[in-house]
Amino acid sequence: MGSIRFAKGHGTGNDFVILPEVEGDLSEAQVRALCDRRFGLGADGVLIIVERGDGYFMDYRNADGSIAEMCGNGIRVFARYLVDHDLAPAGAITIQTRGGDYEVVCPEDGLIEVAMGTATQPAARAMSVVSVGDSTWNATPVLVPNPHAVVFVDDLDEAGDLVEPPEVAAGMFPHGVNVEFVVDRGVDHIAMRVHERGVGETLSCGTGACAAAWAARRRTDDPTPGTARVDVPGGTVWVREDAEGALTLIGPASIVAEGSIDPGWWAEIE
Amino acid sequence: MGSIRFAKGHGTGNDFVILPEVEGDLSEAQVRALCDRRFGLGADGVLIIVERGDGYFMDYRNADGSIAEMCGNGIRVFARYLVDHDLAPAGAITIQTRGGDYEVVCPEDGLIEVAMGTATQPAARAMSVVSVGDSTWNATPVLVPNPHAVVFVDDLDEAGDLVEPPEVAAGMFPHGVNVEFVVDRGVDHIAMRVHERGVGETLSCGTGACAAAWAARRRTDDPTPGTARVDVPGGTVWVREDAEGALTLIGPASIVAEGSIDPGWWAEIE
Repeated sequence: MGSIRFAKGHGTGNDFVILPEVEGDLSEAQVRALCDRRFGLGADGVLIIVERGDGYFMDYRNADGSIAEMCGNGIRVFARYLVDHDLAPAGAITIQTRGGDYEVVCPEDGLIEVAMGTATQPAARAMSVVSVGDSTWNATPVLVPNPHAVVFVDDLDEAGDLVEPPEVAAGMFPHGVNVEFVVDRGVDHIAMRVHERGVGETLSCGTGACAAAWAARRRTDDPTPGTARVDVPGGTVWVREDAEGALTLIGPASIVAEGSIDPGWWAEIE
Repeated sequence: MGSIRFAKGHGTGNDFVILPEVEGDLSEAQVRALCDRRFGLGADGVLIIVERGDGYFMDYRNADGSIAEMCGNGIRVFARYLVDHDLAPAGAITIQTRGGDYEVVCPEDGLIEVAMGTATQPAARAMSVVSVGDSTWNATPVLVPNPHAVVFVDDLDEAGDLVEPPEVAAGMFPHGVNVEFVVDRGVDHIAMRVHERGVGETLSCGTGACAAAWAARRRTDDPTPGTARVDVPGGTVWVREDAEGALTLIGPASIVAEGSIDPGWWAEIE
């Protein structure tokens, strides 16, 4: 068996192993081995580049081996790799995912834009309730289209260490919810922490940044189109909202290293 | 600037970035960036291969950028890389470290042996005391030559989650100490957990395994030479003791992947 090429990269601290030329499917055990941070390469997930006649499909896997539809940070890293390797020309690229086709704008250098669609609320003027320890807040439920509960706080430390998942009032989110804690930093500028369902607190969440920016804009009576800066623990992203409410997530992506997986190591994975 | 080659490997879950051809010195910031598990490659430390006229020097750095003398798991990974790349013939290799020259036996495949020297006690029949929460144990102090306090317990869970460092009676270890919690598993067979000074609980500690095996052997009135199996959270190593008390640490090492660091990413490190 030949060696398997890989790259390692990240978008605002959300990190991925990129596999550009895997033949056949990857087992859950192979994904877990690659993502293991001590015994493997280490990552939050794997981005498998699948060439199709009409473009590229992003086969995204979580570190536990499970399948996910889409990842707002991962798709930037995916696009960065395509452009760096002349698999796609710099500029507009359509990237296929299990969650549908995404329009991405990836320049030769610099920030990458991803059209994320519109955000909605599960019901008009719906509110939810989030608790951490003895603290309880009202939360704005937002679907991007995955579910988020956005909590505005005065200080990001109010959320505590977030080792345990925040408690969210049952009913509105039968499949769990990501919770964003958000503070104002100025005009069109917020900072946030995020607890992702099934994962824990993370350094960045692309859809969470969209949900937070969308909810922050709606705290004014007359939200106008514009671009919000969102500081996350792993860096900064921007969320642009147009007059129709369509959201564009804008952020960096870096390739850290490239190489090949040791065939002997790979062969030992169950 | 050309790209910098690297490999990633581990010994019983203690993982390293190997740099075979770095020119000039590495800054602390560069080491930290390489070892960052989200924004970099991710590792417990960096092994820089320095070719000298009379052999190879292992320039070992901790993940925080600081310099260390020697690493019992790292030197196996270092030897594995040398043999895999025909930089040294399989068999006996002398590897230079800041802690002196080490004799290593690295076959084409399989377990690697490292001559670790002898263990000593700071004073004859010396005992120390270790506490975790409300639990307190007598501990055997052992120098390999770095300091260890070995605690024999009935169950490894007695040590709790080891998030906080165990408290060790002041006096005997002015520069801190690694603490091993050890259970008997049978004849010449122990299992251990280890809290490393300045690091926290780790998956494996080579000198800690030597200290634990040495102390376990001395719980009998008449210790005889032999080989002890030591199960650590990251796998298994063996410690052989000869009639003169010289210890040989025996364990696996794996290379996971190889490649080159992205020059653009590297150039951005301060």
